Amino acid sequence: MEHVDTLITAGWLVPVDAEGTHRRDQGIAIRDGQILDTGPSADLQTRYRPAELVELPDHVLIPGLVNTHTHAAMTLMRGFADDLPLGVWLRDHIWPTEGQWVSPDFVWDGTSLAIAEMLTSGVTCFNDMYFFPEVAAQAALEMGIRMVAGMICFDMANTYAVNADECIDKGLAMRAELAGQSRVTTAFAPHAPYTVSDAPLLRIRELSEQLNTRVHMHVCETSDEDADSVGSYGLRTLQRLEGLGLLNDRLIGAHMVHLTDDDIVAVRQAGSSVVHCPESNLKLASGFCRVDDLLRAGVNVALGTDGAASNNDLDILAEMRVAALLSKGVSSDAASLPADQALYLATMGGARALGLDSQIGSLEVGKRADVVALSLDDWSSHPLYNPISQVVYTATRSQVTDVWVDGSRRVQARHLVGANRELLLARAASWVDNIGSPR
Amino acid sequence: MEHVDTLITAGWLVPVDAEGTHRRDQGIAIRDGQILDTGPSADLQTRYRPAELVELPDHVLIPGLVNTHTHAAMTLMRGFADDLPLGVWLRDHIWPTEGQWVSPDFVWDGTSLAIAEMLTSGVTCFNDMYFFPEVAAQAALEMGIRMVAGMICFDMANTYAVNADECIDKGLAMRAELAGQSRVTTAFAPHAPYTVSDAPLLRIRELSEQLNTRVHMHVCETSDEDADSVGSYGLRTLQRLEGLGLLNDRLIGAHMVHLTDDDIVAVRQAGSSVVHCPESNLKLASGFCRVDDLLRAGVNVALGTDGAASNNDLDILAEMRVAALLSKGVSSDAASLPADQALYLATMGGARALGLDSQIGSLEVGKRADVVALSLDDWSSHPLYNPISQVVYTATRSQVTDVWVDGSRRVQARHLVGANRELLLARAASWVDNIGSPR
Repeated sequence: MEHVDTLITAGWLVPVDAEGTHRRDQGIAIRDGQILDTGPSADLQTRYRPAELVELPDHVLIPGLVNTHTHAAMTLMRGFADDLPLGVWLRDHIWPTEGQWVSPDFVWDGTSLAIAEMLTSGVTCFNDMYFFPEVAAQAALEMGIRMVAGMICFDMANTYAVNADECIDKGLAMRAELAGQSRVTTAFAPHAPYTVSDAPLLRIRELSEQLNTRVHMHVCETSDEDADSVGSYGLRTLQRLEGLGLLNDRLIGAHMVHLTDDDIVAVRQAGSSVVHCPESNLKLASGFCRVDDLLRAGVNVALGTDGAASNNDLDILAEMRVAALLSKGVSSDAASLPADQALYLATMGGARALGLDSQIGSLEVGKRADVVALSLDDWSSHPLYNPISQVVYTATRSQVTDVWVDGSRRVQARHLVGANRELLLARAASWVDNIGSPR
Repeated sequence: MEHVDTLITAGWLVPVDAEGTHRRDQGIAIRDGQILDTGPSADLQTRYRPAELVELPDHVLIPGLVNTHTHAAMTLMRGFADDLPLGVWLRDHIWPTEGQWVSPDFVWDGTSLAIAEMLTSGVTCFNDMYFFPEVAAQAALEMGIRMVAGMICFDMANTYAVNADECIDKGLAMRAELAGQSRVTTAFAPHAPYTVSDAPLLRIRELSEQLNTRVHMHVCETSDEDADSVGSYGLRTLQRLEGLGLLNDRLIGAHMVHLTDDDIVAVRQAGSSVVHCPESNLKLASGFCRVDDLLRAGVNVALGTDGAASNNDLDILAEMRVAALLSKGVSSDAASLPADQALYLATMGGARALGLDSQIGSLEVGKRADVVALSLDDWSSHPLYNPISQVVYTATRSQVTDVWVDGSRRVQARHLVGANRELLLARAASWVDNIGSPR
């Protein structure tokens, strides 16, 4: 009998692979934060002596979900300005509020709430873009979630930095401080082609090459961006990014709603990833991302919630379901984005986009133990023909009961381990009076 | 101090009205199954002496949700044939399975499971269309949900009846047996214009007039129905229904995805209701219902889940959210179908469609006490600017903790009152081996 830290046995295991595999009565043996073994529960129980045995016969084990596009701190603006056209929403509500209130405290409180919400809903890794990322990174370190902290960049002065170069410098300082951390890493995060000019984008291109670091950016989210880009730069958005050397396999393009056929070929050839954010695109009426065409072309697609101000939650299970449903409607093909592929996008798709696919994204021996246990004992889980169908088409986040990140249990029986829930909620609530209720 | 049966006090009350009202610290006094009073909790507590006081400070009270288009027994086929084109799905999976297995036992087991799922997710009334409706009606009577049992009609022989006339006769017999029941009533439910010929439709038209009874039918769900109708009858679907005298204020048209501008005017003038089923329409790639145009034209719109085989759950909270998001995307207008209007569709919209708006659909004095308490203590409910936003854009069905129908508590602290959960689930599971796993 070999010692392991944790042995989880469950009714079903979905490792996430190209074949949509699901297996009955399987377990995972974890040692030093890593998946040491998987297989039939009965076999594992004869081979390993675990410090902790967790038996979940009504559950399915899936890889931790990856939320590949977030603005975590914006949870503090959840639902304060709904149902407004994008321009009015940004100019009259979001930007003035951010200009007045965004601070390290705001980012700490908002990101802590976001991490609590994400962990309890099965998200074990998020790719964030917001002001004061060093504060958000600290919250992630403390709360035990995996994070890619965006080294944000804007031309315009804001409460975080006076210009793009100061943004980049502050991002690099954060990166230096995080050196040696494996769970919280960094990516460059220039906000968008229309908010960052050529000079800082060229600097980011060079740095991302030297440091072999991802570049996370909003790309082609709304229909007017290309025309504006032609007006300002004489080039469509993707042409401009290509010219700047940014359209490559390090680019994580959030949204990418408005792509031509040629754009899709270019994205595929470059090896860039697309982060599909279906609920945000719908809520802000940004358009319909061509997910079916992207997948058929062989582009890597991940899923993101965007910020809670335009969603209004950070629930990747829900996003996965909406993505699977919406792709069928948009492509007029009920066979588009089947359940197993939707789950792939929410796990391996995100891991590949972030360059973390050798570490996370599937339940394979040798990967980090980012594991989600989801109960299939809900009324809507019965009867059961296929656990992947239940996860994608019927499960809600409340069915997530236990979550491990790097082998550490962060959620146990639906409760966030080691968190002061009352304090987190009180701090979030304290912003309501400040931010006010403009509607 | 006046006696009442139940006094519920809650953090918020959303009565559902045209103004999107929400009030803080409100209660509902219930006597004889009816809403006797609503108002500030403190006032009600000084005026009424309740047999039962239910205090829910973290909850919002909303009217019971109305699921206006279901095939409840199809829960037994939940997830057994996903991600298939509509024709393949129906011809190769659903219809053969129904032909082989649908029976009174099938309908009892599937409908009981459906009712358990609906009650625990806040649905207090459903409008059903399936074989052996008298069995489903009996399940509804036993389990305490409100139901409109569809007197189903098909031309084609099936396990329930040999032809349309036998269908109608059996439906009328059920109606006679239900006479005197207030909680379970009936509607005519001819399946669709393409499965029921003119003679039985004319008989239904006459009966519905004589009995002043609704007619619930699939109308214009898919894009080819109009062309087929022209081929078979020389008339587009809606023209044919108009000619048959069925396009009137008793018609509940499920789906109504493929409507022209003229059709929308005709539906409005007739006073018919549309049941929008966004998740089913997406999953089967049926098209995008023009909800924004229907609402602007003044058509009454309700929400439905359709059957669990094409959804895959019976969750009207989720349907409401998808409807609100999708309408913005389809109309390219982020202001389309705001949260309060989405909640209206899911409650009053359904009540109006069913002709039950004097009894249910809102939390008003004199109406039946169909009440849902939904917890706003989820991570995603914080911080809180507007409870209606939280209900529509962040809540999942697991936040529904307590449900009353006709003043009787049917769900208490998330548990279905008086049900044998293990038996219900075992009976549902027993069908899996029969129906098999064709995928």
